Amino acid sequence: MKLVSYRQREGEMWRAGLFAENLVTDVQQLLPGAPATMAELLSEWGHWSTRLREAQAANEKKGLPAAQVELGSPLPRPGSFRDFYAFEAHVKTARARRGLDMVPEWYQFPVFYFSNAAAFSGPKATIRRPKATRSLDYELEVACVIGRAGVDIPVEQAADHIAGYCILNDWSARDIQREEVKVGLGPAKGKDFATSMGPWLVTPDELESARIAGDRGDRYDLQMVARVNGIEYSRGNLRDLTFTFAEMIARASSDCPLYPGDVIGSGTVGTGCILELGAEQYGWLAPGDVVELEVERLGVLQNTISE
Amino acid sequence: MKLVSYRQREGEMWRAGLFAENLVTDVQQLLPGAPATMAELLSEWGHWSTRLREAQAANEKKGLPAAQVELGSPLPRPGSFRDFYAFEAHVKTARARRGLDMVPEWYQFPVFYFSNAAAFSGPKATIRRPKATRSLDYELEVACVIGRAGVDIPVEQAADHIAGYCILNDWSARDIQREEVKVGLGPAKGKDFATSMGPWLVTPDELESARIAGDRGDRYDLQMVARVNGIEYSRGNLRDLTFTFAEMIARASSDCPLYPGDVIGSGTVGTGCILELGAEQYGWLAPGDVVELEVERLGVLQNTISE
Repeated sequence: MKLVSYRQREGEMWRAGLFAENLVTDVQQLLPGAPATMAELLSEWGHWSTRLREAQAANEKKGLPAAQVELGSPLPRPGSFRDFYAFEAHVKTARARRGLDMVPEWYQFPVFYFSNAAAFSGPKATIRRPKATRSLDYELEVACVIGRAGVDIPVEQAADHIAGYCILNDWSARDIQREEVKVGLGPAKGKDFATSMGPWLVTPDELESARIAGDRGDRYDLQMVARVNGIEYSRGNLRDLTFTFAEMIARASSDCPLYPGDVIGSGTVGTGCILELGAEQYGWLAPGDVVELEVERLGVLQNTISE
Repeated sequence: MKLVSYRQREGEMWRAGLFAENLVTDVQQLLPGAPATMAELLSEWGHWSTRLREAQAANEKKGLPAAQVELGSPLPRPGSFRDFYAFEAHVKTARARRGLDMVPEWYQFPVFYFSNAAAFSGPKATIRRPKATRSLDYELEVACVIGRAGVDIPVEQAADHIAGYCILNDWSARDIQREEVKVGLGPAKGKDFATSMGPWLVTPDELESARIAGDRGDRYDLQMVARVNGIEYSRGNLRDLTFTFAEMIARASSDCPLYPGDVIGSGTVGTGCILELGAEQYGWLAPGDVVELEVERLGVLQNTISE
């Protein structure tokens, strides 16, 4: 299934919908008694996901044409947002750009930081460039969304806690980030102004034929591409994660409960941002730029930069 | 006013209450039509705070003896938790312990990291020592709670956005923190397992005679003390903040909206943790230890460590 949060008019509540064949079907209309929002649906995901799949298979009603609705972040307001740093190529290059070598700790456990869960937006949303930056960057990532609570989740059981996957853009203000991390905390202001996610939350069964099973959790063979104004900037593959989502979930949930609606970002794929490619050649993002992140089977997440 | 979140039995919802003379009066009983929870109350704080003050003054009914109820974190689940690093003495000593000098950026702007808003507990709560640490520490801090939304809030207007102040203990696993921050992100797992806050949310009017006005925002002359098993470990004063809460709010809200129910921590006061004092002499916290943080006018926040 592909799940979305959608609305028909600005200012309305984001409602949970199913996306198929370019149509959006309201979850509550499809399945009377089901919750209206993605957050509520995820809070009882084990209960609703099976029923939704059955209802979708039996459904003969047509939904709304996708062009007639606005899609938001599949989860408009995650409970929390942990962003990892799990692709070696990105970490190596980004550190080298700041004159830093790799540290052995990076290979020992997956590391993350908490970012702002209150600044999520969806596909087609306009991303305002912070006034305080002249070095706006995108980051090409994939996120998983938690659908079942747990603490101390073992790697082998982590897949049971994943409701689905989304494309994620962890917008970054490199000049702000560069200064603040020197103090040894964060990043915070370099990242807190915007994160976009979408267009859909794709359930794991849709990715089954791309799955590469491993003893440290599943990987997925999915091409990841970023384009700015139609020109390809970044290309990578989700299977190149050094740490799997299962390992990230095990780390995040160690001595700390995870809850439905928590979002876990992969970190940037190698070549997946301008910081890596070289701003001297590519230039930072500017108002008017259109950034498209595309991941096989997960869709296209397109955003436009504004002043 | 002193506001609390309380419940009479485990498993019940945390209800908003007013605390006075060791009695807890339910907000909704005091003021019919008012919201039941602190989160809802804060979301319309401008509206309810005046009415609450009037209702409290006119109230003749007696509340419940505080000993008969359980107090939680005044805000059981903040919308977000930003923790700053705003006392110079702490930063200098903590960095020196890791062999690091001060960086000039620390003096240029207040720096924070996002931590886990889903792991808050209140006074008297038991704090479980994470299995993965043998270096558990407390951190003696004060937090302010946002009562009015805003973005790009100027220093001069920041006080209007503060609903009140609380004692905050940013529990820390120093061994985990030391390893993870080498990678250049976080801290995250060194901090995510627990934060305690309370016992009350104290409105700014109660601190008025301790206020030291300044052109970069208010400071408060309030002694801060930490005791472990009754022995004084830490002593400082809230007026020694290098950056005021007004400056922290200006920084946090730059290009990024703040919302009612967001929590902003000061960072640790100088001497306010075992990392600074020296674990070789004081020892890390162990199961059975009782940690009391006391701040003038803000009360005592007492927690016990368990295995």
